[in-house]
Amino acid sequence: MAKRVYVDNSATTPVSAAALKAMLPYFTGAFGNPSAAYSYGQEAKKALEESRRVIARALGAKNNEIFFTSGGTEADNWAIRGACKLNEKKGRHIVSTLIEHSAVLRTLEIMKEQGWEVTLLKPDPLGRISPEQLRGALREDTVLVSIMAANNVVGTLLPIPELCAEAHRGKALFHTDAVQAVGHIPLAVRDTGVDLLSLSAHKFRGPKGIGALFARLPLIMPPLITGGGQEKGRRSGTENVSAIVGMAAALEETLQNLEEHTRRISALRDRLIAEVVKIPGAYLTGDPGKRLPGLASFVFENLEGQDLVMALDRRGICASSGSACSTGSIDAPHVLLAMGYTPDRARGALRFSLGPDNTETDVETILAILPGAVEQVRAKNRLNRGSG
Amino acid sequence: MAKRVYVDNSATTPVSAAALKAMLPYFTGAFGNPSAAYSYGQEAKKALEESRRVIARALGAKNNEIFFTSGGTEADNWAIRGACKLNEKKGRHIVSTLIEHSAVLRTLEIMKEQGWEVTLLKPDPLGRISPEQLRGALREDTVLVSIMAANNVVGTLLPIPELCAEAHRGKALFHTDAVQAVGHIPLAVRDTGVDLLSLSAHKFRGPKGIGALFARLPLIMPPLITGGGQEKGRRSGTENVSAIVGMAAALEETLQNLEEHTRRISALRDRLIAEVVKIPGAYLTGDPGKRLPGLASFVFENLEGQDLVMALDRRGICASSGSACSTGSIDAPHVLLAMGYTPDRARGALRFSLGPDNTETDVETILAILPGAVEQVRAKNRLNRGSG
Repeated sequence: MAKRVYVDNSATTPVSAAALKAMLPYFTGAFGNPSAAYSYGQEAKKALEESRRVIARALGAKNNEIFFTSGGTEADNWAIRGACKLNEKKGRHIVSTLIEHSAVLRTLEIMKEQGWEVTLLKPDPLGRISPEQLRGALREDTVLVSIMAANNVVGTLLPIPELCAEAHRGKALFHTDAVQAVGHIPLAVRDTGVDLLSLSAHKFRGPKGIGALFARLPLIMPPLITGGGQEKGRRSGTENVSAIVGMAAALEETLQNLEEHTRRISALRDRLIAEVVKIPGAYLTGDPGKRLPGLASFVFENLEGQDLVMALDRRGICASSGSACSTGSIDAPHVLLAMGYTPDRARGALRFSLGPDNTETDVETILAILPGAVEQVRAKNRLNRGSG
Repeated sequence: MAKRVYVDNSATTPVSAAALKAMLPYFTGAFGNPSAAYSYGQEAKKALEESRRVIARALGAKNNEIFFTSGGTEADNWAIRGACKLNEKKGRHIVSTLIEHSAVLRTLEIMKEQGWEVTLLKPDPLGRISPEQLRGALREDTVLVSIMAANNVVGTLLPIPELCAEAHRGKALFHTDAVQAVGHIPLAVRDTGVDLLSLSAHKFRGPKGIGALFARLPLIMPPLITGGGQEKGRRSGTENVSAIVGMAAALEETLQNLEEHTRRISALRDRLIAEVVKIPGAYLTGDPGKRLPGLASFVFENLEGQDLVMALDRRGICASSGSACSTGSIDAPHVLLAMGYTPDRARGALRFSLGPDNTETDVETILAILPGAVEQVRAKNRLNRGSG
């Protein structure tokens, strides 16, 4: 078999060489507990705080606005549960969207069980949410608005500064799940004005199991996880030093190369899109203009995205039919349904997400293989229907 | 300076060579998302499930009773919040002890804010809690009993099977924070009868940022962190594959050598205890008989444990004055206060916790250095008092 082509970087990425190199000393050498008083601990503490500075600088935040979590999902949970707890005297209403990641949507369901009202905005057919829509949904008792910065299924970029301004006019806090955005598009918390922002390291070549929540001062978030009082009492648990150091190294490296990377990857994405939509019954999903640089997403008529993913896998291509969190599920992506796709059409979803390792050769390989794979899956379907 | 002597293994441990070696492939090679459908993802998924089998086997649990978390603190939070939510129809009363880790105690305070009643059992002067005590505290409306398996400050082992039996007679669930116990003493969940058990990898030479909750079937724990539905919907977030693999490798290695290690380390601990108590004004804390194999804990008259930790650090010895979670704090350890020590006496706490890397030479180094360090700290105190 030829070299494997990995184009599922929105699901997860390999740890970069620089990040792994930065992490290694903290497993065995400077392994001390950052809360310890002796020098071993202080070395770890220094690495921890230097990493915090790197992350803060990357986001245009202050150091003491960055809190480490076990990943994007924990950060989303914390942002929503914490902001609601913090401001429940104002009311019990939340505004979000139908295209959020399940880390947000499932957590909003829990809030509903606890008596909160949740309004979920419906995107337009390109996956967009407008400030006007948000304005119409805000109420006196709206405590929190949570809208993602970039969608994980179709790559559409949301107008965060404008949405945030609307939320603030309504005196609501604004949270953005920026898990797909950080390390992929320029994003400065001061410019966007967001109060809370979630990020995840393994989406930008840092390790899994680590992320962060930005919480704008003077916001004091009530903790989700309580205990020894690490992270200024906001997030307890021995700090995952090596992973934090790896996250910082990965983000720094990613942002250093962001402009050049974006140019290169967008070109690959555009070439992919231009050719794939020539396949009969293939359509681009998401906003053709404002989308993640590496994300090319489609629906194919008369097939199941999952079958196509498996057919591509047999040919050495790793892609995805939607989000990475629903293995074995043949449900249509909720994002496409919300955008107005029929269940049948939505089930034919396929997503390629390009990363820094991808090359023109990878794209040509995909383009050489994809039409045949599509045809094979469709033929099999016809056969099954014929014999059924 | 001579070789550093690290004797704070109860705070954290270096990652073992075997664990690190096991982890490395999952950062860069088999980095796929375990929830992905293609083969890259399936390799990670296989490693994840094999690790679950290793952890389950080590605890005498079933595979589907093990849920990965970001560490012991999250596992404690989840156990308490989840068990209370699950059984709140029975009542709103919890029994725990005054010597728990703050991951438990702080979480119980949150439960109190939410209207729960909490009874905290007081230990005897050796740090022990008896089944009779627990029996006296159980009520009709007791939902949960949470008692640690081994204390982190004084090393006392608690009689978990007996305590658990009492809780069950009272129809309460039993949780044990076994963060200091797993990998250090034999512990089989079937024998002890516990319903919930928390563990943390970095206490037995696995990486930081990973732990697990054992939840006995048919208990279905409501999730603490919601989202993509990983861990059978019980704990969402992309699985931290490399850390999970590292945890399993570390636990397997630790348990393979447990008997021999325990024999060797207990001997070192006993030698340390026998000699340290000869220092004037030095006293052993905790149960002299039933204690963690590697833990030697003391109080010293007329000094601050924190000063002694710093004096030892300058001489190349890494020890601790209490738990690792309260840097810079000069509070006396709450555990010693609960055991009946005066604040003055409790502030003189010092803990050595030995690990597999420690040797007889380390112990002799400590014994050569400690008396002088104690005398120096005391002399400085006398001088400060004299000039004050």
